[in-house]
Amino acid sequence: MAYEFSHHRRVEFADTDLAGIVHWTNFFRYAEEAEHAFFRSLGLSIQMDVDGATIGWPRVQTDCRFTQPLRFEDELRVHLLVREVGKRSVSYRFVYYRVEGEREFEVARGNVVTACVKMHSKDGKIASTAVPEVVRGLIQPAPHDLPGNEH
Amino acid sequence: MAYEFSHHRRVEFADTDLAGIVHWTNFFRYAEEAEHAFFRSLGLSIQMDVDGATIGWPRVQTDCRFTQPLRFEDELRVHLLVREVGKRSVSYRFVYYRVEGEREFEVARGNVVTACVKMHSKDGKIASTAVPEVVRGLIQPAPHDLPGNEH
Amino acid sequence: MAYEFSHHRRVEFADTDLAGIVHWTNFFRYAEEAEHAFFRSLGLSIQMDVDGATIGWPRVQTDCRFTQPLRFEDELRVHLLVREVGKRSVSYRFVYYRVEGEREFEVARGNVVTACVKMHSKDGKIASTAVPEVVRGLIQPAPHDLPGNEH
Amino acid sequence: MAYEFSHHRRVEFADTDLAGIVHWTNFFRYAEEAEHAFFRSLGLSIQMDVDGATIGWPRVQTDCRFTQPLRFEDELRVHLLVREVGKRSVSYRFVYYRVEGEREFEVARGNVVTACVKMHSKDGKIASTAVPEVVRGLIQPAPHDLPGNEH
Repeated sequence: MAYEFSHHRRVEFADTDLAGIVHWTNFFRYAEEAEHAFFRSLGLSIQMDVDGATIGWPRVQTDCRFTQPLRFEDELRVHLLVREVGKRSVSYRFVYYRVEGEREFEVARGNVVTACVKMHSKDGKIASTAVPEVVRGLIQPAPHDLPGNEH
Repeated sequence: MAYEFSHHRRVEFADTDLAGIVHWTNFFRYAEEAEHAFFRSLGLSIQMDVDGATIGWPRVQTDCRFTQPLRFEDELRVHLLVREVGKRSVSYRFVYYRVEGEREFEVARGNVVTACVKMHSKDGKIASTAVPEVVRGLIQPAPHDLPGNEH
Repeated sequence: MAYEFSHHRRVEFADTDLAGIVHWTNFFRYAEEAEHAFFRSLGLSIQMDVDGATIGWPRVQTDCRFTQPLRFEDELRVHLLVREVGKRSVSYRFVYYRVEGEREFEVARGNVVTACVKMHSKDGKIASTAVPEVVRGLIQPAPHDLPGNEH
Repeated sequence: MAYEFSHHRRVEFADTDLAGIVHWTNFFRYAEEAEHAFFRSLGLSIQMDVDGATIGWPRVQTDCRFTQPLRFEDELRVHLLVREVGKRSVSYRFVYYRVEGEREFEVARGNVVTACVKMHSKDGKIASTAVPEVVRGLIQPAPHDLPGNEH
């Protein structure tokens, strides 16, 4: 049962803005990349078919606190922790670290609550649905004393 | 003294993702567009020089709750409300409405806390600073009973 | 029969990069916004259903020459000109102008060739198809002596 | 003397649009990522200081031909080839391959011409300058018979 995942990437030029730092909206892109890589690491895809329906995970709530800026070519580790596996939702904590050789510096942390939905390709309708067993059988909440999971 | 602003725009094709809806990170771009248009409406710019230093407004905290999806070509009104004018920060509420003719449907709402900083172009350093008088003299918190400001 | 369209917008903060200018990839987003607004101006949508199939316009070829930078809050006019209406494709010229009051300065120009396709929602397959009559009946190539259309 | 570089990445969810494929503007972001990784592989940075001035590489011309769509989670190899090292510019060819195990399928190819400039942080002015010796000493045009370099 998995409850954490580390996603490594570098800050790209196009991620910055005229203030010379990463535009804040990209933290959310980084979080989503980590979430999707987490699913792939479990042999799943964030876009999967279950019983003939396409399952999706729209975001229903998110928050983030930014404490230090990130700059072009910074190395980044996004630490994903599973916070809660609900009946129809999964919640994550994301802690962002700037990596300098052996040392890491936390630059931001936040949470994302995703809802599990069925997507009907015909009419584009989206309906809440139970988290599939194939997902539920592979993930669980991270221990409360895991670094990054505190508050 | 201004405390609210309405930013109108349409959902662009590039704002959508394969689920056929607006990618969530774009809500934050829409909020920022509204904030910057609010400043322009006051004769200010979000990037201004005060006493020889460039003033910037990095985000320190944000949250958002998404209740309905937005789709390509939807008309959108982003309602900005000033929540707090602190000594070194300004906080906003953003309520997002899908507009259909005379009717509006709330699709998301959230908050953004911005810090006022001085940016040193030489070394790229960023330092917290007091909200300039020119800004403080033009904005104030929105009344608590203003629609969208409730909770 | 329409052959040109002007799309006005302002450069947003998130469109810039650490060099302090608009990241080049956004010129293509601006072009696409102009194209879609052009379709809307004709009572069409770039995403329309014809005879029960969804019609799409993927790009097959593009080029652009950038001559001057654009900066945050610059006013921009994207001038779209129809270059060619083919059997299964439509080609456009885009000329980008920075607007300063009554004056305009060309900052970039380029071309985009779009293919008309049918999109099958079931399997995601895309197949070339004829430009629908409803589109063909509304647009035509711009005159060769129209400013921006020269070379 | 280096003349090529391969950049591997995966298509992210946020790179797609409602048509279910990679939004075309992202090909240019992928190209730029490859260019910057190429510079890092040489011990350089695309944003470097030479003789006290910041050197930048704005794009002056680009073209691209898209032959096949890319989809979410596709594996991608961007093959960068140096086309020309001019006095004040460097030109690249980019060939994009979708990777399926041992096989590769070309999905797009294009060119980017970059100008070498000095950037003055004080007034934001940009001025054409000679390609620094440190760069000139490390790169050269790719052989004409290298796959991808043909036409």
